[in-house]
Amino acid sequence: MKTMGLQHLYLINPRYFPDPQASAMAAGADDVLQNAVICNSIDEALRGVVFTVAMTARLRDISIAVKTPREAMPEVLQQAATQPVALLFGTEMSGLTNEEMGKAQLGVNIPSNPEFSSLNIAAAVQVMAYELAVASQQFAPVVAPEIVPATHERLEGLYAHLEKTLFEIGFFTTQNPARLMQRLRRLYSRTRLEDEEINILRGMLTVTTEYNARLKERYNQEHKDV
Amino acid sequence: MKTMGLQHLYLINPRYFPDPQASAMAAGADDVLQNAVICNSIDEALRGVVFTVAMTARLRDISIAVKTPREAMPEVLQQAATQPVALLFGTEMSGLTNEEMGKAQLGVNIPSNPEFSSLNIAAAVQVMAYELAVASQQFAPVVAPEIVPATHERLEGLYAHLEKTLFEIGFFTTQNPARLMQRLRRLYSRTRLEDEEINILRGMLTVTTEYNARLKERYNQEHKDV
Repeated sequence: MKTMGLQHLYLINPRYFPDPQASAMAAGADDVLQNAVICNSIDEALRGVVFTVAMTARLRDISIAVKTPREAMPEVLQQAATQPVALLFGTEMSGLTNEEMGKAQLGVNIPSNPEFSSLNIAAAVQVMAYELAVASQQFAPVVAPEIVPATHERLEGLYAHLEKTLFEIGFFTTQNPARLMQRLRRLYSRTRLEDEEINILRGMLTVTTEYNARLKERYNQEHKDV
Repeated sequence: MKTMGLQHLYLINPRYFPDPQASAMAAGADDVLQNAVICNSIDEALRGVVFTVAMTARLRDISIAVKTPREAMPEVLQQAATQPVALLFGTEMSGLTNEEMGKAQLGVNIPSNPEFSSLNIAAAVQVMAYELAVASQQFAPVVAPEIVPATHERLEGLYAHLEKTLFEIGFFTTQNPARLMQRLRRLYSRTRLEDEEINILRGMLTVTTEYNARLKERYNQEHKDV
């Protein structure tokens, strides 16, 4: 709940409360648990609420309309903008009864493997809270580290440098230069190179040429007489 | 994993395996745990994989691009259509190192409360598996129980019956009939009544009239002399 920005927990007839094990597992979110409101009935918990969404693992024999979390959350948010709303979850063992479901305006079912569809309550709450947080856009979506692609002329500079270097080190003797350069263009255009990456690549090319030049020079010195 | 249709679990240097506590918690999904592949390194676990998505709680100092689960999953599915893909999770305590993240093609961060952003690994896996299942549409989305709205003439039949009954039981004596009927039309049009619901409502009206007729009859019999 807390990771997804939810604070208000209502517990209806909890078997144990406070529960040392629950407190231990809450870790940094123990404030949510400490501030939980303990109720004797669903009606008491829903007092003042104008829109209740009930979790269900069943799709049949449900008295109310059932949607997926993704479909339901925009409606929940719209209602929540002005008045209290609630997400209602049943027990770990048996969920909500039909009578309890009838207290909600909308049912929500998490699409799942029909051969093993029983999400535990922690998992179901996580999915619901996550979908609510995503729908609310309250946590700024991740901004992917911006790729600032290099300009055309910088790219062409790289390709020219690359071709020249490959020529100098004698790579093209057994290869078709034009075809190979096409392959290399394809590779690098797919990555959308940034300026700094081009600097790195050209640095590598420069060092390669220098290394090659030194080799040549040494060779020439050792074979001065040739 | 199993509720969301995932089967292939790779564990890298698990502290205990098999672990009786894990087996107990797996409940009906113990087959996933039993079939888990134990590996000595991330490289071993990722052998043959062409697209790896790594979970991260951090947004900065990440060497690879980071997306939200919702943005990432279509790409994961596209790759998975032809070749093996992997979702890579770090340890509960410290996640993945930068070096480990570098083995992935894409990072994924679950948008969360900046003041309490540390989803535990079970919660993170649930969200990722859920987003993958939703993106794959492999589990037929919930079909909301279809409302088959009644026809215009059936609705008008109800309103006429309702008005007649309200008139008969003397409800209109202190009310403006036209205005009240407008309010009732507004109420019922909002619910989009089905045929059977109209039958039920009209049944109630009929019984009300009959009850009223019986009352009148009894009154008339008791006051024959009036």
